[in-house]
Amino acid sequence: MLPDRAFFDLLAEAAKKETLPRFRVGADVVNKEAGGFDPVTEGDRAAETAIRALIEQHFPEHGILGEEHGSVGLDREYVWVIDPIDGTRAFISGVPVWGTLIGLYRNGDAVMGMVDQPFTGERYFADGKAAHYAGPDGSKTLATRSCPSLADAIMFTTSPHLFTGGGRDRFEAVQDKVRLFRYGVDCYAYALLAAGHVDLVVESGLKPYDVGGLIPVIEQAGGIITAWDGGPAERGGEIIAAGSRAVYDEAIALLQG
Amino acid sequence: MLPDRAFFDLLAEAAKKETLPRFRVGADVVNKEAGGFDPVTEGDRAAETAIRALIEQHFPEHGILGEEHGSVGLDREYVWVIDPIDGTRAFISGVPVWGTLIGLYRNGDAVMGMVDQPFTGERYFADGKAAHYAGPDGSKTLATRSCPSLADAIMFTTSPHLFTGGGRDRFEAVQDKVRLFRYGVDCYAYALLAAGHVDLVVESGLKPYDVGGLIPVIEQAGGIITAWDGGPAERGGEIIAAGSRAVYDEAIALLQG
Repeated sequence: MLPDRAFFDLLAEAAKKETLPRFRVGADVVNKEAGGFDPVTEGDRAAETAIRALIEQHFPEHGILGEEHGSVGLDREYVWVIDPIDGTRAFISGVPVWGTLIGLYRNGDAVMGMVDQPFTGERYFADGKAAHYAGPDGSKTLATRSCPSLADAIMFTTSPHLFTGGGRDRFEAVQDKVRLFRYGVDCYAYALLAAGHVDLVVESGLKPYDVGGLIPVIEQAGGIITAWDGGPAERGGEIIAAGSRAVYDEAIALLQG
Repeated sequence: MLPDRAFFDLLAEAAKKETLPRFRVGADVVNKEAGGFDPVTEGDRAAETAIRALIEQHFPEHGILGEEHGSVGLDREYVWVIDPIDGTRAFISGVPVWGTLIGLYRNGDAVMGMVDQPFTGERYFADGKAAHYAGPDGSKTLATRSCPSLADAIMFTTSPHLFTGGGRDRFEAVQDKVRLFRYGVDCYAYALLAAGHVDLVVESGLKPYDVGGLIPVIEQAGGIITAWDGGPAERGGEIIAAGSRAVYDEAIALLQG
């Protein structure tokens, strides 16, 4: 049996209890190496523990790929892919664009997913067929924007410093063509893309758990997300997400160029 | 008579009625030049009109410096400095890090100020003596963090592309020294600095209305905000804001170097 929305909500609520109280606590994350309190690492670990306990209780036959506590049963039909706090730098610096990412893979394909931002109260959820939003601006079905060309597109990336060598040049070739680019919003950029507010996200160096929860949300909102080589995004690495085929085709030609 | 908090709240609520309904409407801001609907410009203008009407009604003897509708009585003792939507690129792309900035200058010095983020429901207010926060994480008095050195600091800037020529080199000299830097959060970065979550903001090319509402919030939370040459921030231009004297001194030496 597949999980339903209520189960994903249960996971998000369990994670929120561990993450939100540690956000903006004003603790000394700066001196982490010197033995100081580190709320983001604590929150990450505690939230993943809470999520895993619920999965193991309700779906003991499923595998789990987590950021903090390793992997179990990755060869099983269903595997959960979890990043309790994606965007730790945003979390550390008080910006509410981090998120809890929960994806469910079936035979390696991401089929259901959730992005939760507890501070703003926004939740993006893909149920296997459609993607949904609930938050301060109401509830709705998500649909990407049909942006006609790269010259009309709004692009996001976490930081240009993620790209090295030839990747940097190819990223900049895309950046030079778009109407507007912005840095610094981590997983939130993909959620905004699914909601039709932005058109393109280009990133590098992602782990599977950085994208697992996002893929179904983008695809089921009508968007496209792949590796730069056109292969599946599920394995992470160099990732492109676009709200329309036109923007995807133009951008990926430059990224492969 | 000086305005009180209730009056600033009234201004923020009047602005919110014009800005928030235009945020994330999914309108075609892309084709603005081709005559499309432009929610950010409409929201900016309507919010400033609403704010100015209230000021003219309650404080007809005060001057007003606005972004959208020009200036009145800049030689008067009190002058309001207004940016209805600071961070238009954030607004356009759906990221809730834009804000309504309202400052009150007395003889050229910023003495009271407010930063309001209507989507997250966060309001930062400086009453002339202290700076206050109200939002999803409760109400509190704001205090900057006493970060001991640049090497421990978290720095924000909207985009490295704001800096040109020698300014870019000097900015990068600072960026190379900090513990963590992030791009892309506009006025929200200054609010986070006042709240003690980040330690340094370095920017360039600001107008007076981009900083007028922020200066009192930072100063009355215990921070320092000046031009790069050490002069007053009230006139805009190249701006540095720091939560502690130690970080300020180290950064400004590099910016002037």
